[in-house]
Amino acid sequence: MSSLHPTPDYISLAHGNGGRLMQALIASVFMAPLGMDTPEMQSDAAPLVLPEGVVVVTTDGFIVKPLEFPGGSIGSLAVHGTVNDLAVAGADPCYLTLNALIEEGLEYALLKRLIEDLAQAAKACGVQVVAGDTKVLPKGEGSGLYLATTGIGVRPVGLHWNMAQIQPGDVILVSGPVGDHGTAVMLAREQFGLRGEVYSDCASVVPLARALRELPGVRFLRDPTRGGVATVAWEVAKGVGCTVHLQEKAIPLRDPVATVCEILGYDPYYLACEGRVVAVVAPDQAATVLVRWQALAQGAAAAIIGTVEAGRPQVILHTALGGQRILPELEDDPLPRIC
Amino acid sequence: MSSLHPTPDYISLAHGNGGRLMQALIASVFMAPLGMDTPEMQSDAAPLVLPEGVVVVTTDGFIVKPLEFPGGSIGSLAVHGTVNDLAVAGADPCYLTLNALIEEGLEYALLKRLIEDLAQAAKACGVQVVAGDTKVLPKGEGSGLYLATTGIGVRPVGLHWNMAQIQPGDVILVSGPVGDHGTAVMLAREQFGLRGEVYSDCASVVPLARALRELPGVRFLRDPTRGGVATVAWEVAKGVGCTVHLQEKAIPLRDPVATVCEILGYDPYYLACEGRVVAVVAPDQAATVLVRWQALAQGAAAAIIGTVEAGRPQVILHTALGGQRILPELEDDPLPRIC
Repeated sequence: MSSLHPTPDYISLAHGNGGRLMQALIASVFMAPLGMDTPEMQSDAAPLVLPEGVVVVTTDGFIVKPLEFPGGSIGSLAVHGTVNDLAVAGADPCYLTLNALIEEGLEYALLKRLIEDLAQAAKACGVQVVAGDTKVLPKGEGSGLYLATTGIGVRPVGLHWNMAQIQPGDVILVSGPVGDHGTAVMLAREQFGLRGEVYSDCASVVPLARALRELPGVRFLRDPTRGGVATVAWEVAKGVGCTVHLQEKAIPLRDPVATVCEILGYDPYYLACEGRVVAVVAPDQAATVLVRWQALAQGAAAAIIGTVEAGRPQVILHTALGGQRILPELEDDPLPRIC
Repeated sequence: MSSLHPTPDYISLAHGNGGRLMQALIASVFMAPLGMDTPEMQSDAAPLVLPEGVVVVTTDGFIVKPLEFPGGSIGSLAVHGTVNDLAVAGADPCYLTLNALIEEGLEYALLKRLIEDLAQAAKACGVQVVAGDTKVLPKGEGSGLYLATTGIGVRPVGLHWNMAQIQPGDVILVSGPVGDHGTAVMLAREQFGLRGEVYSDCASVVPLARALRELPGVRFLRDPTRGGVATVAWEVAKGVGCTVHLQEKAIPLRDPVATVCEILGYDPYYLACEGRVVAVVAPDQAATVLVRWQALAQGAAAAIIGTVEAGRPQVILHTALGGQRILPELEDDPLPRIC
C-alpha cells in the first residue's frame, strides 16, 4: 500500500502557499528535526524563558554556494554564524529563529539533510529554534536555499566587550588558523582541479568566548567572517583611529590553505573563517588569553598576531621576510557567497 | 567637484563583501533611516531593554512581487507582517531584526525607498530595528529584494490567546474587508488591463489586538495572511477538531475586490489580508468585540462572520443564496508571492 501523500522528490510552489503541502513540509522537514513539534510551539509567536542578564539579539543571512561543502553546510553555518555573533558579544546563545527561502525544484532530500545539519548544530550549541518561516521562490529566482537566522542570547550584566575599550598598546590574538572556510567553499565550488585537505572551520566559538569572560583587560572580540582577519583589523583601525600591526609569521595558516591561495592568487587574510575569534586584549593579559585558548581543542593553534598602536588608521603586515606591506581595505569581492 | 565616492546607480556584488562599499551601503540605506546610527548599535549583537511580561518572538520572510504596490511595499509589509504576528499573540511589539537579500543590479534609489518605507512603518508601530544583515545575490539568483524580519515583543503575564481555548459555540469575527492585499498585489503584478480602486490593507493590527486584551472570553486571534480567511478557518477546524461555519453575506468584501475576483475566477476568501484580524470569541463577548473594533478606524467594517460548531473538521460557507458550499483546504497556490 502506498501512502496517500507520498513525500515529493522536489519542492514545488505549492509548498509555499500556506496550505496543506506547506504544512506537511514544515512538519516533516522543519518542526520534527528541530524539536518544534510541541503544542506550545504551534503559535505565531513563541514565548521565551530567559536567564538573568542583558538580553542581546543579532541576525545573519546565508547564501553560501554550494549548499554543502567539506566541513559543513548552509544548515550548520546558519547556526554557527549567528551563535558566534552572540558569543563574541559575550552572550550565551539561547534561542534562534529561522527563515528559509527555498527555490522551487530543490531536491526534497537535500533540503531535509540541510535542515538536519541545522538541527544538529543548534543542539550542539544548546540553542532552541523557537520560530520559523518558509517561503518558496519560483525556479530561477533563487539558488536552491537561502537561510536567515536571528539569535537571542543573554550576556552577564557589566560585561562590555566593545571597540571603544581598545587602547594603543593592546595586543591582537586569533584563536586558530585563518582562511579555512573561504578556501574550503571555494574548492567545493570551483572546478580548479585542485584537491586539498581543506575543511571549513565552521563551528561554535562559544567555548572560546566563554573562556575569556571573567578575565580583566579583554577589550573586544570579533569573529573574522566576510573579509577575514584583514577586515577585522581594518574595523579596529578605523573604529579606534589607530594603526594595526600584524605579524605575518605569527598568523596561523594551514599548509594546504597557503598552497591553494598561492596558486590561485588569493590573500588568505581576506578569506572568511567561521569558527575563529580575533581578540584585542590588554598587553598584560595576552599570555593568559593565549593559555586559556590553547587549553581548548579548537584553540590549540591560537596565537598572538599583532598590536594596536597610535597612528593613522591603516593595517600594516610585517612580512616573514622582514618587510612591511600595507593591507588595503577590502574593496572588490575576492570570493563572493562564502556565507 | 564630484565626490570621490558617488552614490552608485545599482547594487553590485561588492556591496555584499564586508568591505568599504558594503559599509557605505549599510550606513546610508539602512542605519540612517532606521535610526541605527548610534554608537551602541555598532556591535554585532544589540542589547535590548524589555518591559515586564512574557518575551515572545516571531519571524517572517517576504518575497512579494512587485516590490511596490498600491497601499504598500515589501518594506512596509516586512514590518507589518511580523508585528502583526506578535499582536495576535497578545504582545506589544518592541524590536525587529532585519535581513535583506539584495539582487545585484537592483536600483539603488529603489532600495533606498523600500528601506525608508520599512523605517517609516517601524516608527509608526513603535518598534526599533536593532540588528540587521545584508547579503547581495548574483544577478539572476534573486528577484530584486527579499526581506526577513524577526520581531520581539512582550505579552502580559496570564494572557493566553491560543487555539486550545476555542470551544464549540464560539463566534468568529473579522476586523475588516478581506482579500484587499492579495488583489492589490495581483493587479500591480499582472497585466490584466483591469484598473481597480484596490489598495493593500497592509497595516499594523496592534490597536485591534490591544482593544481586546482585557476582555474575558477572547480565545484566539490570527491575521489571515497567506491563504486568507478560509485558511484560518481550516486551521481552527483542524486544530480544534470541529466544523467552522462561515456566512457569506456577513464577510466584508469591497466591491472592486469582489468584481476583480469574479472576473478572474479567484475566491476572495483565500486571498491574503495584511491588516486584518480574525478573532474567535465566546458567544457572550462577540457583541463587545464588535463594538470595540468598530470604534477604531481600521475596524469600522468589522463583522461577525461565523461560528465554531461540534462536527468533523471542515469549513462550510453558507452562501448568500441560502445554499452551502464546502470550502476546500488550500492545495494549489491561487496567487503566489503576495507576501
